[in-house]
Amino acid sequence: MTTDALLPAKAAPSALRRARDVVAPATRAFIARLDDTSAAIASYHLGWTDAGGAPTSGGGGKAVRPALATLSAQAAGAPARVGIPGAVAVELVHNFSLVHDDVMDGDTERRHRPTVWAVWGATSAILTGDALLALAQEVLLEGTSPHRAAAARLLAEATRHLIRGQVQDVAFERRDDVTVAECLDMVSGKTGALLSASAAIGAVLAGAPAEVVDALSTFGAQLGIAFQLVDDLLGIWGEPRVSGKPVFSDLRSRKKTLPVTYALTHGGSAGRELAGWLAGSEPGGEARAAELIEAAGGRRWAATEARRRIAAATDALSAVPIPTGPRAELVAIAHFIVAREA
Amino acid sequence: MTTDALLPAKAAPSALRRARDVVAPATRAFIARLDDTSAAIASYHLGWTDAGGAPTSGGGGKAVRPALATLSAQAAGAPARVGIPGAVAVELVHNFSLVHDDVMDGDTERRHRPTVWAVWGATSAILTGDALLALAQEVLLEGTSPHRAAAARLLAEATRHLIRGQVQDVAFERRDDVTVAECLDMVSGKTGALLSASAAIGAVLAGAPAEVVDALSTFGAQLGIAFQLVDDLLGIWGEPRVSGKPVFSDLRSRKKTLPVTYALTHGGSAGRELAGWLAGSEPGGEARAAELIEAAGGRRWAATEARRRIAAATDALSAVPIPTGPRAELVAIAHFIVAREA
Repeated sequence: MTTDALLPAKAAPSALRRARDVVAPATRAFIARLDDTSAAIASYHLGWTDAGGAPTSGGGGKAVRPALATLSAQAAGAPARVGIPGAVAVELVHNFSLVHDDVMDGDTERRHRPTVWAVWGATSAILTGDALLALAQEVLLEGTSPHRAAAARLLAEATRHLIRGQVQDVAFERRDDVTVAECLDMVSGKTGALLSASAAIGAVLAGAPAEVVDALSTFGAQLGIAFQLVDDLLGIWGEPRVSGKPVFSDLRSRKKTLPVTYALTHGGSAGRELAGWLAGSEPGGEARAAELIEAAGGRRWAATEARRRIAAATDALSAVPIPTGPRAELVAIAHFIVAREA
Repeated sequence: MTTDALLPAKAAPSALRRARDVVAPATRAFIARLDDTSAAIASYHLGWTDAGGAPTSGGGGKAVRPALATLSAQAAGAPARVGIPGAVAVELVHNFSLVHDDVMDGDTERRHRPTVWAVWGATSAILTGDALLALAQEVLLEGTSPHRAAAARLLAEATRHLIRGQVQDVAFERRDDVTVAECLDMVSGKTGALLSASAAIGAVLAGAPAEVVDALSTFGAQLGIAFQLVDDLLGIWGEPRVSGKPVFSDLRSRKKTLPVTYALTHGGSAGRELAGWLAGSEPGGEARAAELIEAAGGRRWAATEARRRIAAATDALSAVPIPTGPRAELVAIAHFIVAREA
C-alpha cells in the first residue's frame, strides 16, 4: 500500500514519543499500587522488566492511544497534562484486553516475548488483566478534573464495546458465512471503541463542547477501522522484520480477517478456492491463499477502505474548531498508522 | 456455632428481600445492554435463565451486598433509592469475581448448577466477567448523584483489593507456612473489600460525612471477615442441605481455610497430623481431618473470632449518628450472616 499522497506523516513519531515520556512515569506510579504479583506481571507485560523482574530497556509499545488522549485535551484548548489521566487509563484498558486476549486465543508470543499466560499461567493472566481494568477507572476517578465522571463513563462504555467486539471475533471463528458488514462491526468494537475513546477522553476531561467530543470520537473510530485494515494487510503481506509478525501469521491460524472476508464474499472462483482452503486443516498453502485473496480483490479493497477511513477520520476533525497544532498532529498520527508498509 | 446471644436476626430476610425486589429489575435493565452472548451468559449465571435461555424462577443469590448498599444510603439519611446504582454495581462486581474465580479454581458447580465456564468454556467466562466488571462502573457513572465519581472510585479501589485477595489465595495454595495473620489479610481483600464497599457506597452516593462513610466501611470490612469465617465453618461442618455445599467440600479440595490455618499454626500434635494429611493426596480422611481441626482449636477459634468481628462491626456503627431503622437492619444482617448454622 502506498501512502505518498497522505503526507505529512513525519510529525507522528514525535507526538508518540512525547506522549510516552509523560505517560510512562504516571503509569508506573499507578502499577506500583497493585499487589506485588500483579505489579510484577504487569511490568513484564508492559515491557519494563524481564520475566525475572530485572529492568529492561524500551518497552511500552507505540503509545498511539496515550498520544491521542493528550492531543485530545490540546484539541479542546487545554494543556496536554489535562489528558494524562485519560492517557494512562486507555493504555491500561488496552493492556487489560491484550493480556486476556492472549489467554483466550492461546497466543504464546507478543512483541517478540512470551505472553503473560505462557510465563505465569492463565490464572495469573486473568487476575492481572482484571487488575489493570479496575486500575484504569481509579486513574480517572481520582484525578482533579471536574469532568472525571464523564471521562470514566466514556471509558467504561468503550470497554463494553471492546468486549462486544471480542465476543463477536470468537463467535465468527466458528462461522463460515460472516459478512464484511459484520466483520466491520466487530472491528469497530474490538479496535475502534478504545481508539475512539482515546481520541475523545482528553477533550472530555477538558470539558469540551459535545460537538468537539463527537468529532474526536468519530476520528478515533474511523482511525480504529483503518488501523485494523492495515494490521490485517500486514498479517498477510507484511515484512516480518518491520511488522514484528511471522510471515503469513494470520493465514497460518486461518484467521478470517477483513481482506479474507472480503475475498470470501466477493471473490468468485478465487473466493471459493480460498473458502475450501480455510475449511481444511492441512498445513501449508499460505502463499497460495495470499494469492487468492489478492485475486479476489481483498488486498485492494482493504487498502482502499483504509485510505477511505483515514479520509473520513480527518474530515470529522475539519467540521469543528480545533487548534492548528494538535489538529496537524492528530492527522499525522492517522497517516502514520496507515503508512506502516504493507 | 450458636448465636442465641446475637438476636435480633429476624429482620434480616425482609431487608434482603426488599433489596432484591428493587435491585433485580435495575440489574436486568443494565445486563440487557450487553451484547446478546454476554447478556445470555450473565442471565444464566445470575439464576434468571437456564443454559438454554429459558426463564427460571428464583435466582439472584442472597442479595446481601445490594441490601447493604441501599441500607447504607438510608444510614446517611437518604432514601433507599439513592443507593440503588451502588447496589447494582456491587452485585455486578461480586458476580464478575465469581465467574472468573470459577474459571481459575476449576469449579464446575455453583448454587447447584454448572458454572459458566463448565457450560460455555473459559473464553466466554473470561469475557462475561470482564463485561460485568466494566458494566458496574457504567451503572454508577451514569447515575444522577453528584457524588457518583467518589462512589465509582470506592468501587474501583475495592475491586483492586478483591483481586489482591484472590492473588494471595492462589499463592497460598502453593505454600505450607501461611500464618493466620496472612490468611486474615487475604480474606480482608477477597471477601472484606467488597462487603466494605457495599456497606459504604450508598452513604457515599448520599454525600454522607467522612466519619459515617468510614464507620460503614469498617462495619462491612468486619462483617466480611465474619462472613468468611462462617463460610469456612460451613465448608467443614455445614449441613449440606442447608449450606448448599457437599459435605466436607473444602476439606476434600485440601483448602487451607481460616480454621485449618489456625489449627496448623496453633494445634500441637493434632496440627502436625493435619499438616501431614494436607500434604498428602490420598483420597478420604476428611472426617478425621475435621476432628483434628476441632482438637487443635480451629473450630472454636473461628466461631469466637466470627462473633468478635460481628461485635466490632456493630460497635463501629455505634460511634456515629445513624437513624435507628437502618442501623437495626444493618445489625440484623450482620447477625443473620453468622446465624447460618454451622
